[in-house]
Amino acid sequence: MTDDFEPLTQSVRRLIDVTIRSEVGNAAAAEAKAHIDKAVELLSAELMPGSYGVRAAADGRPTALGNVLIGARNAIAPPLVIHHAPEGSVHTEFELGAAYEGPAGHVHGGVCALILDHVLAAPAHRPDAPAVTGTITVRYVRPTRLGRLRAEAWVDRVEGAKTYVVGHIADAEGATVEASGVFIRPKRR
Amino acid sequence: MTDDFEPLTQSVRRLIDVTIRSEVGNAAAAEAKAHIDKAVELLSAELMPGSYGVRAAADGRPTALGNVLIGARNAIAPPLVIHHAPEGSVHTEFELGAAYEGPAGHVHGGVCALILDHVLAAPAHRPDAPAVTGTITVRYVRPTRLGRLRAEAWVDRVEGAKTYVVGHIADAEGATVEASGVFIRPKRR
Repeated sequence: MTDDFEPLTQSVRRLIDVTIRSEVGNAAAAEAKAHIDKAVELLSAELMPGSYGVRAAADGRPTALGNVLIGARNAIAPPLVIHHAPEGSVHTEFELGAAYEGPAGHVHGGVCALILDHVLAAPAHRPDAPAVTGTITVRYVRPTRLGRLRAEAWVDRVEGAKTYVVGHIADAEGATVEASGVFIRPKRR
Repeated sequence: MTDDFEPLTQSVRRLIDVTIRSEVGNAAAAEAKAHIDKAVELLSAELMPGSYGVRAAADGRPTALGNVLIGARNAIAPPLVIHHAPEGSVHTEFELGAAYEGPAGHVHGGVCALILDHVLAAPAHRPDAPAVTGTITVRYVRPTRLGRLRAEAWVDRVEGAKTYVVGHIADAEGATVEASGVFIRPKRR
């Protein structure tokens, strides 16, 4: 696999944004489409079947370049970069533009749920014992404006196989969406 | 606004997929990037500020071409087409490929939450009285494989300003993710 796909993916992210916001005429739109179709043809010369999946990197750690939230090859991903604090909490800062819109000028509530599902799972996982999401509850406190945001999550408590995690998405004025999740660590098979 | 952006957006959706799955070398990847950057330049000649928002169409009904789930101009959107049944329930069928991956070969749990947040809101809305999402709870029954899926939602009950909606995402073998949501109809201002 090549790192050259990362700048390519960044260009696709810009393309997604301007495809929504462009006000050019049909001729320019048709010309742009021709370039996009040419890029699709070039990249399709050799395609892996199915999806990228999760692979072991050189250092043995799993890499998910195709992941919808953190994948360096997935143009849908902002992408999120999850920072793990020593005490176990996690946080990430990201920018959400026109491509993540729901209500006019605001982040789609479902996108907040998508991000919180991923961020809440982070503190529940342990390299030696992965956890699966059981239930996640998302509370919409107030509208989340498009722009610079921060998400945080930490373990509230652990009861047997269940890890209870809480977190939120916040803007400069504080939390806009709160979430709690129950993650289950499957018994060793 | 022009409908010519719909085929353009379909091409961008294909580009997102092959950018993840391509196994071509650096030279071809660089050539593809050059075409994508040219398309971005052409579309950026005239850009609306901010985001697309929600606009009144010719028939007066709101259109959200930039919406992350239903927008015909948003390449992140599958896009979903929500069908309203006479008795008030809603359903939608869609295909989720490599771009929506979380666990290898499976839909990211957060993507299921994103879709359910949108689908559950549909039966709660009334043209005369829009409702806002208060809380949504998502239960992961079993892994959701990438592929053809269906989502459904219906109103369970209404209590004053609160509308309780339930729904699920299902594959050919039945429900993989279940959800319930509370939607609030704000008092008339």
